[in-house]
Amino acid sequence: MTNAQLDLAFAALADATRRAILARLLDGEASVAELAAPFALTPRAISKHVGVLEAAGLVARSRDAQRRPSRLRAEPLAGIDRWLDPYRALWNARFDRLERRLAEQ
Amino acid sequence: MTNAQLDLAFAALADATRRAILARLLDGEASVAELAAPFALTPRAISKHVGVLEAAGLVARSRDAQRRPSRLRAEPLAGIDRWLDPYRALWNARFDRLERRLAEQ
Repeated sequence: MTNAQLDLAFAALADATRRAILARLLDGEASVAELAAPFALTPRAISKHVGVLEAAGLVARSRDAQRRPSRLRAEPLAGIDRWLDPYRALWNARFDRLERRLAEQ
Repeated sequence: MTNAQLDLAFAALADATRRAILARLLDGEASVAELAAPFALTPRAISKHVGVLEAAGLVARSRDAQRRPSRLRAEPLAGIDRWLDPYRALWNARFDRLERRLAEQ
């Protein structure tokens, strides 16, 4: 994953509505109307959010169907997961220290 | 981790310079001057990036020392790691399918 792709993915995820849209898509593909239902937002606003997710590669929209359902694409999330790798040792080490301290009590 | 904290963390990470600063801090704490060295940026610009990381809880700055070294804080990254959990099953399932297909060839 390039720096530009990571920039887009992180920026797309920096919004609670967009994260909620992704969480909804875990249950399966959905049209803009279906995605808009649980939110106090217009389909137009939801469509804009989906556009940001699509540009970041987090969502793909079917071209053939009239309702153009969105589906989740995992690749950028797997990229972020790999980006986290070198940092994982850090919080694991801190967690181990905490556990040791609790065990000593 | 609250939605507001996730917003700040993801937004702070949506910048290659800020991600490079975090990577540098994996090696240990560093002053703004030390952080600026590898970049074609002024200490003032670096300081601004460190401020964004600090506001997101990704960096803590020592208050006592005059050089005010920054150090990495892992908590928001661990929060993002937990946020990724429900999506992990998705790319693991796709990876398993790929492996199976390769094994069948």
